[in-house]
Amino acid sequence: MTSAAFDVLGIGNAIVDVISRSEEAFLGKHGLVKGSMMLIDEARAEKLYAAMGPGVEVSGGSCGNTMAGIASFGGRGAYIGKVRNDQLGAVFGHDLKATGVSFETPSATSGPATARCLILVTPDAQRTMNTYLGACTGLGPADIETKRVAAAQVTYVEGYLWDAPAAKQAVLKAMDAAHAAGRLVSITLSDSFCVHRYRDEFRALVRDKVDILFANESEIKSLYQVDSFEAALEATRKEAKIAALTRSEKGSVVVKGGEVHTVPAAPVARVVDTTGAGDLYAAGFLFGFTNGKPLAECARLGGVAAAEIISHVGARPEQALKGLI
Amino acid sequence: MTSAAFDVLGIGNAIVDVISRSEEAFLGKHGLVKGSMMLIDEARAEKLYAAMGPGVEVSGGSCGNTMAGIASFGGRGAYIGKVRNDQLGAVFGHDLKATGVSFETPSATSGPATARCLILVTPDAQRTMNTYLGACTGLGPADIETKRVAAAQVTYVEGYLWDAPAAKQAVLKAMDAAHAAGRLVSITLSDSFCVHRYRDEFRALVRDKVDILFANESEIKSLYQVDSFEAALEATRKEAKIAALTRSEKGSVVVKGGEVHTVPAAPVARVVDTTGAGDLYAAGFLFGFTNGKPLAECARLGGVAAAEIISHVGARPEQALKGLI
Repeated sequence: MTSAAFDVLGIGNAIVDVISRSEEAFLGKHGLVKGSMMLIDEARAEKLYAAMGPGVEVSGGSCGNTMAGIASFGGRGAYIGKVRNDQLGAVFGHDLKATGVSFETPSATSGPATARCLILVTPDAQRTMNTYLGACTGLGPADIETKRVAAAQVTYVEGYLWDAPAAKQAVLKAMDAAHAAGRLVSITLSDSFCVHRYRDEFRALVRDKVDILFANESEIKSLYQVDSFEAALEATRKEAKIAALTRSEKGSVVVKGGEVHTVPAAPVARVVDTTGAGDLYAAGFLFGFTNGKPLAECARLGGVAAAEIISHVGARPEQALKGLI
Repeated sequence: MTSAAFDVLGIGNAIVDVISRSEEAFLGKHGLVKGSMMLIDEARAEKLYAAMGPGVEVSGGSCGNTMAGIASFGGRGAYIGKVRNDQLGAVFGHDLKATGVSFETPSATSGPATARCLILVTPDAQRTMNTYLGACTGLGPADIETKRVAAAQVTYVEGYLWDAPAAKQAVLKAMDAAHAAGRLVSITLSDSFCVHRYRDEFRALVRDKVDILFANESEIKSLYQVDSFEAALEATRKEAKIAALTRSEKGSVVVKGGEVHTVPAAPVARVVDTTGAGDLYAAGFLFGFTNGKPLAECARLGGVAAAEIISHVGARPEQALKGLI
């Protein structure tokens, strides 16, 4: 295995977030389930946007947030994702490259617009997400350069990509290319509803193709269809090589065969917006992992990054994370 | 004079802000003068954007911010400004209408893109603005419906409009229409560099066409070419009908003939980003004024709105201002 040009290569849905504060009542009125991510079509996106309050636009996408976090720690990252050649696509590309992430996937020159996620943040700091995938549905195997995959220590993908059939094929190609080059593969399960949609495929992936698994408590319970975290942990231990399971204010648990590391959450003065907590946990963990840190320290770095992101609106770091460690 | 459908009709450059944190050194390297607003062309905007860090997009424009503030107080506002029919234009229109401001100016269907202001916020919370006017240069007299002007108690315009020749003609048409309908006219001088560019015209306007003048200390000193605030105040008293002069942490001074009201600034726990302080002061003042409050109370409301806006990133209120009074 040659030395790696990148610590992590991320593959994800390239999305610009439109974040708006919302009262609880708005969710009920529009049939939204608090805390979930719902896929919506363009007509529904237009209608919901028209009903929403004023917004703030920030580059997002789960994996994009993770890659920006890794770069903010000083890590070397690359990203593969699809935008359209429109204004929001330019914003997405600028913001990622400005953090220092290598991003060379060609923009679509026709077809649907750059993806948007309409995020409603309720007074309890929870986010409810409504994603119009737009140009993301155009990501396919042709966008995966195996040379780029081979140049990264870890290829990290989001479960959300299973919502776009061509993107799923792209991910499978990347996973095989990574292993062929002697590299590692990591995935986040993304969302418990996403796990529900693709449970069998995700279980097979975790057993056969994933070296580092990220999931939160509800996702891992959904994956193994169990009611308690303890039962989920036990199932994970049997099937996953390394798993980092996040539990919000209870911190995280990392399991690797016989090893179990329970790491408390980093303190947060005030939780403003939980958008991106899991994405940034993965950033800290993977930055630590690819820089040779022990698993418990990887989990601690994940917690530091998550604490920064939930203390403000938006899912990209506002402070250089390397200054926090 | 019939009863008014709107408290305030604002006319301004319709701009989406791109806000990015920046070190002091970046300003020097790119020849930027801290605290100023510089007009830039599209090529310069592209170049500066490519060099900037990741950004957050928020609807802005001085007068747009003021109108959003008036609506946030519960006031009835209308706005005239020009965007292109592109993604950022849709963002601008959505955000303004979502606050409750009436906005019906048709978008340009050809020509330059929606205006952007690249704003660099340095660690001292100062903002340095670089404006690409784009579609704003297409605002002209045809966009001024005199019926709409006559329906507002006060027509409020920004001095920045003088940078677009057709927009200046639009403003002059609106001022005459307001007075013909027995309504009032208000202007903000916008920026000391803007005053320098149009000093003679602004002095004539203040004498002949303006009922309520807004200016900060450096703008009013530039207008009358004097070195002290006291001298500027004396000159203002002689030439302006009502003037509200803002002095940052020293609060504001309102002068109307023999009356002088000195009002302290509202307390702020931490100044994060001064973008929009003057815009929101005008919002509070005009909301109070059009709702029959005495001048000192108008100034106090201006201070409350300014304090809210400088306590976070962005120039649109994050809390309902009516909840703060």
